[in-house]
Amino acid sequence: MFESAELGHAISRERYRREEPELRADLLDAQFDLWQARRFPVIILIGGVDGAGKGETVNLLNEWMDPRHIYTHAMGDPSDEERARPPMWRFWRALPPRGKIGIFFGSWYTAPIVDRVMGRTKRSQLEGSIAEIVRFEKMLADEGALLVKFWFHLSKDAQRRRLKALEKDPETRWRVTPLDWKRFKRYGKFRKISEHTLRETSSAEAPWIVIEGADPRYRSLTAGRVLLAAMRKRLDQPKDQHGPAAAPPFAASIDSLHVLGALDMTVRVPRKAYERDLEKYQGRLNLLTRHAKFGEIRVIAVFEGYDAAGKGGAIRRVCGALDARQYHVVSVAAPTEEERAQPYLWRFWRHIPRLGGFTIFDRSWYGRVLVERVEGLAQEVDWMRAYGEIKDFEEQLARHDTVIVKFWLCITKEEQLRRFRARGKVRFKRFKITQEDWRNRKRWDQYERAVCDMVDRTSTVIAPWTLVEANDKLHARIKVLKTLCDRIAETL
Amino acid sequence: MFESAELGHAISRERYRREEPELRADLLDAQFDLWQARRFPVIILIGGVDGAGKGETVNLLNEWMDPRHIYTHAMGDPSDEERARPPMWRFWRALPPRGKIGIFFGSWYTAPIVDRVMGRTKRSQLEGSIAEIVRFEKMLADEGALLVKFWFHLSKDAQRRRLKALEKDPETRWRVTPLDWKRFKRYGKFRKISEHTLRETSSAEAPWIVIEGADPRYRSLTAGRVLLAAMRKRLDQPKDQHGPAAAPPFAASIDSLHVLGALDMTVRVPRKAYERDLEKYQGRLNLLTRHAKFGEIRVIAVFEGYDAAGKGGAIRRVCGALDARQYHVVSVAAPTEEERAQPYLWRFWRHIPRLGGFTIFDRSWYGRVLVERVEGLAQEVDWMRAYGEIKDFEEQLARHDTVIVKFWLCITKEEQLRRFRARGKVRFKRFKITQEDWRNRKRWDQYERAVCDMVDRTSTVIAPWTLVEANDKLHARIKVLKTLCDRIAETL
Repeated sequence: MFESAELGHAISRERYRREEPELRADLLDAQFDLWQARRFPVIILIGGVDGAGKGETVNLLNEWMDPRHIYTHAMGDPSDEERARPPMWRFWRALPPRGKIGIFFGSWYTAPIVDRVMGRTKRSQLEGSIAEIVRFEKMLADEGALLVKFWFHLSKDAQRRRLKALEKDPETRWRVTPLDWKRFKRYGKFRKISEHTLRETSSAEAPWIVIEGADPRYRSLTAGRVLLAAMRKRLDQPKDQHGPAAAPPFAASIDSLHVLGALDMTVRVPRKAYERDLEKYQGRLNLLTRHAKFGEIRVIAVFEGYDAAGKGGAIRRVCGALDARQYHVVSVAAPTEEERAQPYLWRFWRHIPRLGGFTIFDRSWYGRVLVERVEGLAQEVDWMRAYGEIKDFEEQLARHDTVIVKFWLCITKEEQLRRFRARGKVRFKRFKITQEDWRNRKRWDQYERAVCDMVDRTSTVIAPWTLVEANDKLHARIKVLKTLCDRIAETL
Repeated sequence: MFESAELGHAISRERYRREEPELRADLLDAQFDLWQARRFPVIILIGGVDGAGKGETVNLLNEWMDPRHIYTHAMGDPSDEERARPPMWRFWRALPPRGKIGIFFGSWYTAPIVDRVMGRTKRSQLEGSIAEIVRFEKMLADEGALLVKFWFHLSKDAQRRRLKALEKDPETRWRVTPLDWKRFKRYGKFRKISEHTLRETSSAEAPWIVIEGADPRYRSLTAGRVLLAAMRKRLDQPKDQHGPAAAPPFAASIDSLHVLGALDMTVRVPRKAYERDLEKYQGRLNLLTRHAKFGEIRVIAVFEGYDAAGKGGAIRRVCGALDARQYHVVSVAAPTEEERAQPYLWRFWRHIPRLGGFTIFDRSWYGRVLVERVEGLAQEVDWMRAYGEIKDFEEQLARHDTVIVKFWLCITKEEQLRRFRARGKVRFKRFKITQEDWRNRKRWDQYERAVCDMVDRTSTVIAPWTLVEANDKLHARIKVLKTLCDRIAETL
């Protein structure tokens, strides 16, 4: 969830000065159209880490837009009036009417998360609150509201730096209280619980938008653009369209930083070290699968990656360590007629192995949020809900003794070109390069964005993504084998 | 949930013989169209009380329709293959493809309910399973599946009679095992847990249809008709309609029995007894609201009823017992402009009193499933989801120290006519009778059905409906006052 918001996003003063006036004018226009049409309310939730710029963003939005049509609610401690009523009462009374914008600084998420972090509630109570929130937001969406949920994030280091900087400046010193430092000590817990809550409440109708909060210019421009795009999209929908609110678009990446770009693509493993490590990890993997307790678990390994990233080669090295009676490789191509007649995940459920089994998916259920998204084979509402459905699927697997290991094999655009050309030259590899590969290559940027969204939305504690630098095939294979060994060993 | 399924529904042999052949032919036609179009699968769940005719219904559906396009899955104990995989695997593999019908005799509901009844799981585990089921069925609906969920019900007495009858007959004796009697002992627990589960999983896309199982002809004809209507409705939807599956219609009442009809409308209270009881219960109610602990709760009383049923008079007798500083009467008419700009429940949330408060709603949030449904002011998908939203609303209130007392004031059609005419004659009452009242009266049967559905779907342990026989106003007022006293006393 937070992967993309820990990369050190920042934009220059010049660019901000250039782009801010136009964004501001566009937001005012959208707000005007919203008020004229009075078709739906906009509900903006502002949550996140202390010091990540929540308050500044609220102020900025008020400054940018017409404050007569914005209600801002700083939801601190409930008033006497509010305490005498059920907790949701204060949020109901604060809902904006159609045509207006309501900003909730602190929302129905605050108490469930904070109470859990402070140990005042049990896990089951948090789950109950989450279920209630999901139903509440579904109701809002069904009633036509546009929900834009912002989460401002800082890494632990960034938060420490931010609090220290505020303390140092005499003008902002007052803003850092002992409570802030007390909360800082619980950063890890806060992060874990927030991440879980965000993931469980990110629906197709109301997905969370996570924004890195360290750089004010990046933060402000991103929030403004996301809000603008969401409002425009809803305003442009046909009037009589009945159904859920449009999904706001994902955080538009406004700079060139992303999780894939953060990889060091120059890593290399020398041939000699490779041969030594290959033997070592294949041996270890083999031993692990013959472990007395291996029969009580199953392993599911997912391989995704750009064309020509070396998935096949990596998979062969894994299989080389396994007993042929135990493993099964599922190559996922276009669905068969039988598969098309079923719900999307059906064709993957059918390949779930017995306990003691080891199944390798060469491409997988992530096709829906990759190729189907980019090529327009699935409608937006369908691939948006797929994130949640995949989460449910993997949670069920994990709960029932499954080790899920997911690899994204990453190569650079230049390396892909080199490999495509090389394939064209070697006769027995020519079948591996088709027109489709060249076509996919043209959509490189769209794929890149889809991959970043996928990692942000589906890399969980129980089923994390491992990003593999695969410009060097030898390095990639060793990293895959080692990760598999570590994850299985952890579980046994 | 089960109110309408304990009335002793039955239909005659003649009627069954007359109607069955046509129903059968229509079902075959619908099945043929389903297969030709291959647009969606039909998933039928069969659950309920033992001995209520689940197995017979499954056999009958197979007999009525073309078995080549029906898959029946009797989900007993999982096989060795199935036990070695996550629990949902067996259901995924059994899903019917588009164009076919899958009947699940025993389903994803069986284990969560039975495990909880037997005390093998905790309440929180049941809640977890329910949340998972809700997401699973939402996914099925989003993928286009038509879900028809039948629950066959028997009252405790009816189940005892049924098991005894089976035991007596030498040909069916084998069907009753000691396990059946052991389960019978847990009837109360089973009923309570099933009711909770059914309510939490009755969504607009996949509502439960509860059918009384005692009379085989009634049961079969009802199940057949509901299935037919649901399939026809989906088949007639435009092909390219994107969105959730159509909601199946409510159990079409195929005989004249219903929860309102079961009331004894002849009850009368003599004037003398009335005056004595009025004083008694008004006094008691007054004392209760001055109880030391009354400040820790709030009371919400809802009055609904046919026009001229005497809501106003009953409400005045309640107010007569209360301190004017404490209570508040909210008359619900057409929403104001401000209210129309908000989600439906907003206008009720704003009137939730503080602790220690007593609010009387003269008409209420049930308008959506009564007048708005009948008059076509709300679309079906909107009033269908209202049942769930109202449940969430009342659950939140109840969890936060609210006593919710709901009255349906019932009069006969004849009595209403008498009162309308009388009103026309008395000058100071003339304003109380309008053209609209006469118009509503024309839709009496539709209102009746809407009321029965409302009681079935929203009468919960925490917020039960009290049906008040109101042909005699004196009786009605006393019953209202007494019920209020009892419910408040229970809580304090």
